[in-house]
Amino acid sequence: MARFTSMEHLRFLLFDVHHIEELFTHAHFAHLDAEQAWMIIESAKQLAEQEMFPYFKEMDEAPAKYDGKGGVITHPQLKTIIRKAAEQHWIGGSALFEHRGLQLPEMIFSTGHHLFQAANNGIEGYIGLSSGAAGLITSFGSAEQIATYVPNIFEGRWQGTMALTEPQAGSSLSDITSTATPTDKGYYKVKGQKIFISGGQHEACENFIHLTLARIDGAPAGVKGISLFIIPKFRPEADGSLIYNDVYCAGDFQKMGQRGYSTTHLSFGDNDDCRGFLVGEPHKGLTYMFHMMNGARISVGQSAASVAMAAYQASLQYAMERPQGRLANEKDPSKPPTLIINHADVQRMLLTQKSIAEGALSLGMECNRLYDLTHATTGEEKEKYFLLLEILTPIVKTYSSEQGSRSAALAIQILGGYGFTTDFPVQQHYRDLKIMSLYEGTTGIQSLDLLGRKVTMQQGRVLELLQEAIQDTIIKAATYPALASYSIILEAELTRMGSVLQHLGQFAVKGEIDRYLADASVFMEMVGYIVIGWQWLKQAFAASKKLAEKDFSSNSAIFYQSKIHTMEFFFHYELPHTLACEKTLFNTSQLTHIKDYDMFA
Amino acid sequence: MARFTSMEHLRFLLFDVHHIEELFTHAHFAHLDAEQAWMIIESAKQLAEQEMFPYFKEMDEAPAKYDGKGGVITHPQLKTIIRKAAEQHWIGGSALFEHRGLQLPEMIFSTGHHLFQAANNGIEGYIGLSSGAAGLITSFGSAEQIATYVPNIFEGRWQGTMALTEPQAGSSLSDITSTATPTDKGYYKVKGQKIFISGGQHEACENFIHLTLARIDGAPAGVKGISLFIIPKFRPEADGSLIYNDVYCAGDFQKMGQRGYSTTHLSFGDNDDCRGFLVGEPHKGLTYMFHMMNGARISVGQSAASVAMAAYQASLQYAMERPQGRLANEKDPSKPPTLIINHADVQRMLLTQKSIAEGALSLGMECNRLYDLTHATTGEEKEKYFLLLEILTPIVKTYSSEQGSRSAALAIQILGGYGFTTDFPVQQHYRDLKIMSLYEGTTGIQSLDLLGRKVTMQQGRVLELLQEAIQDTIIKAATYPALASYSIILEAELTRMGSVLQHLGQFAVKGEIDRYLADASVFMEMVGYIVIGWQWLKQAFAASKKLAEKDFSSNSAIFYQSKIHTMEFFFHYELPHTLACEKTLFNTSQLTHIKDYDMFA
Repeated sequence: MARFTSMEHLRFLLFDVHHIEELFTHAHFAHLDAEQAWMIIESAKQLAEQEMFPYFKEMDEAPAKYDGKGGVITHPQLKTIIRKAAEQHWIGGSALFEHRGLQLPEMIFSTGHHLFQAANNGIEGYIGLSSGAAGLITSFGSAEQIATYVPNIFEGRWQGTMALTEPQAGSSLSDITSTATPTDKGYYKVKGQKIFISGGQHEACENFIHLTLARIDGAPAGVKGISLFIIPKFRPEADGSLIYNDVYCAGDFQKMGQRGYSTTHLSFGDNDDCRGFLVGEPHKGLTYMFHMMNGARISVGQSAASVAMAAYQASLQYAMERPQGRLANEKDPSKPPTLIINHADVQRMLLTQKSIAEGALSLGMECNRLYDLTHATTGEEKEKYFLLLEILTPIVKTYSSEQGSRSAALAIQILGGYGFTTDFPVQQHYRDLKIMSLYEGTTGIQSLDLLGRKVTMQQGRVLELLQEAIQDTIIKAATYPALASYSIILEAELTRMGSVLQHLGQFAVKGEIDRYLADASVFMEMVGYIVIGWQWLKQAFAASKKLAEKDFSSNSAIFYQSKIHTMEFFFHYELPHTLACEKTLFNTSQLTHIKDYDMFA
Repeated sequence: MARFTSMEHLRFLLFDVHHIEELFTHAHFAHLDAEQAWMIIESAKQLAEQEMFPYFKEMDEAPAKYDGKGGVITHPQLKTIIRKAAEQHWIGGSALFEHRGLQLPEMIFSTGHHLFQAANNGIEGYIGLSSGAAGLITSFGSAEQIATYVPNIFEGRWQGTMALTEPQAGSSLSDITSTATPTDKGYYKVKGQKIFISGGQHEACENFIHLTLARIDGAPAGVKGISLFIIPKFRPEADGSLIYNDVYCAGDFQKMGQRGYSTTHLSFGDNDDCRGFLVGEPHKGLTYMFHMMNGARISVGQSAASVAMAAYQASLQYAMERPQGRLANEKDPSKPPTLIINHADVQRMLLTQKSIAEGALSLGMECNRLYDLTHATTGEEKEKYFLLLEILTPIVKTYSSEQGSRSAALAIQILGGYGFTTDFPVQQHYRDLKIMSLYEGTTGIQSLDLLGRKVTMQQGRVLELLQEAIQDTIIKAATYPALASYSIILEAELTRMGSVLQHLGQFAVKGEIDRYLADASVFMEMVGYIVIGWQWLKQAFAASKKLAEKDFSSNSAIFYQSKIHTMEFFFHYELPHTLACEKTLFNTSQLTHIKDYDMFA
């Protein structure tokens, strides 16, 4: 069986770097211990290996496809995957006991999903989406809504979806036009078109629970007039029977990647009989939806990191098996060729991938830990974790997806011509990954969120929390002589970020918001490198600690040395990109405010 | 008809920037003038628009496919394309009059091919390959070989190919094992396996002329024992009949992109009846092959730039038509949304693409001009052009392919979710482009060629020639006040390159070649930015001249302003990446010399 991730790295992240055992000291997670946590993750690995990974290529080559009459044909294995994942609690496991979940921390639950994403990324979407949809209903739905929908979703018989995007609005949610007309029977009549609905009405599930944004008649314009509805494909009646709810799948989208994952166009209320059930209060739909959306953003980031990890593992295996060429100082053609892993350029490409994939996974784990702590703590402490998570969410989503694509390109490059052929998986990883910078808010949207909202939130308090968290790692790492110089480098990066913000801040202060935000994506790129630099220093610190303590109970000495090595690589080969970002961000020429489109011709 | 390139930009490059009219002052090209040149290019545009572009998507969706019995099934339009391109001299047009060509300069011939590449890049491969193969035969073949093969290739009835790669050798040509046993009848008996043979034995041509590398029995090991053979699929007999020459197509490769372009596995001499006809002298095969290979490298670079250009045009069109969202300082949701081209981030992505695609095309044109001058001149002058071309070849190949992929990713990003669907061409551009960094020597190979061979060639004389050429542009541009500060920036970049080389040179001097070359790819990346910076300054100078002279006979004032604007953008947003490369290249930690593979696990 080919490796698609590193269990050693997962163990390292969970126990050595992000200290999952601390969670178990909180009452909320006290029912678990480290051994159980690892057993659960091992079971996810088995599921991924047996039921998902073997179908990765097949599901790409026989994509989910619209049947021309309201349904989507999927690979026969999909039903098995969803059922088995449900049975093993990979849809409902993170829910509270009161909702019949296992109250698993995200650190465990998401690590399980990482294994699925690395094995067969599109397919994980079906269960991840159901899990997120159920989480939204349990958070904001009524007791009746929870009882009606959640158990069926947890059993994998009903599929949850997010129905936000409309053809005319795209990323601009304030322009949503789907309507919801109140009735005197407790439900709303909904009409509208939704596109790009992942996991839409396919044959592997019996019913579809679309969490849908629409406007109640007379609602205010913009995002303040959006409400959230549960709209099932088949609505459950009081007697338990299901009646078609006028939600028609009008077509699908064929895609470059994630071809096994259905992407649909849904039409609500064509026959004026689509009933929507309001979640929570009117006009607060976007706030509710962002509960799910934030989770989805972290999950997309982790998914991108997982695919990058799978591509890394595939190219590493190839590099260790493929003899080709000779080293620069050993050109005698009568000698046998060397393995390509011995070429410096191949090592550079491998370490680039490793530093991106493992760095991004570490940031994902950091986010999962913060999420868990917001559930395990209260008051100021909880608020602090929440705010840190707020600022890290757009970063983990964007770094992982943008750099993940770059990483997968290097995997192809290592395989040479073979990497471009369908005989090897890396080209599929490359194709699949490209969606990650578009899902749940494009890189442009995430960057506006970071610079326009998160950085300025609470007068900069949120940014300060991030800087403090990074400082904490800098100080700890500096206690190891081998890490001291890297602590200094990361400190300088924080200064760089500060000076860029001071420069940009001038425009914000003057109310020139367009100018302040113009290069938000470049700022995001810079912050991404710095935050991953932080994660690498954190990993190097954890590894140094294990080496100093000679504690090799969970991983080997060479494993820990490799973490320090990869940190050094990241600092010397990746982190310097902040220099370019800084230079661009200090430019004052306003080159992206062109009015005359002929300038582009 | 959707735009797939900019005729205005081509006119600008040909006439204003690279001065094709100077070629016509040389006897070798005196039969042409500017008006004719443009008419020929216009005819290529018509061919691309009518016969190639409409099939771009179709040919991807019904890929070239092995028929299980020695042939490759291709799209029916392919035969029409090859015949029409042949009739209009797009296979043989650049050949000398004595070989029944039109003696067209590459500046014209390649610009025609650019139009085909932008319209339908995989398909251009068939004719580009035939053209290159015929060029190799006319350069080094005997009069009889030329007479036998070249006219048939020029007519598009016979397809030329390059057969270098073998399964066990990959990029390492010194490990080629195909054998050629001399006979007393003037031919060699060839045996061997070749893979990744583009344009291999498909149904749109009648015969295939494989230019094949093999070792004559007893030849020295390594690259010094490789000879070049013409190996037809059907060998022409004295009476004009064709006899099967034991060249069997044993299979094909299905690929992520360029799916309409056949990629085959050829087996020579399975029945001991494969005759190869030696080209030139024994053991000089690699030198001959590099004549074609160098042309192919430039052509791949231009092809990558062409696809990036097509993706740019597609995303530009979308950005000018798609309303979405509101500007940062105008958030009133009751106002209609703005076109996405008005968002600064979209402009940033468009200008990034424009600066990459047009910059790379300008470098391609520079190479074509140098190639033409090596044919039009003699002695020291010719040598100078030849050497400059030598150093620019790996750069144009690598910059265009690596940055072209990045550029196409931005095209997808502009289209959002739609960009990922097969309803739009940008995802195909993205997939197609990925092969360009692998064709004809990967980025790693090109980088070793640049730093290991070209930079050190003739005691650094070749590098000096490049620096002089860049200096020449710097001095000219500095005469325009608006360009003066950019001249200074580019001057500083030359200094940066010099100091990096001085640093790396230490290791070369000490004989630590492995260390000297370890980060050759990072050096390549840095030089790529600098060389494209040069091309942008050259374009800005040409545009400034037109503006100063108020000469708008070939393009408009706004067009020229856009060139200066794009140069500024490149200098502020792209060129700063050299800072990161420099920082990495000065690192002395030797992080890519790992001996223990467990360090990667």
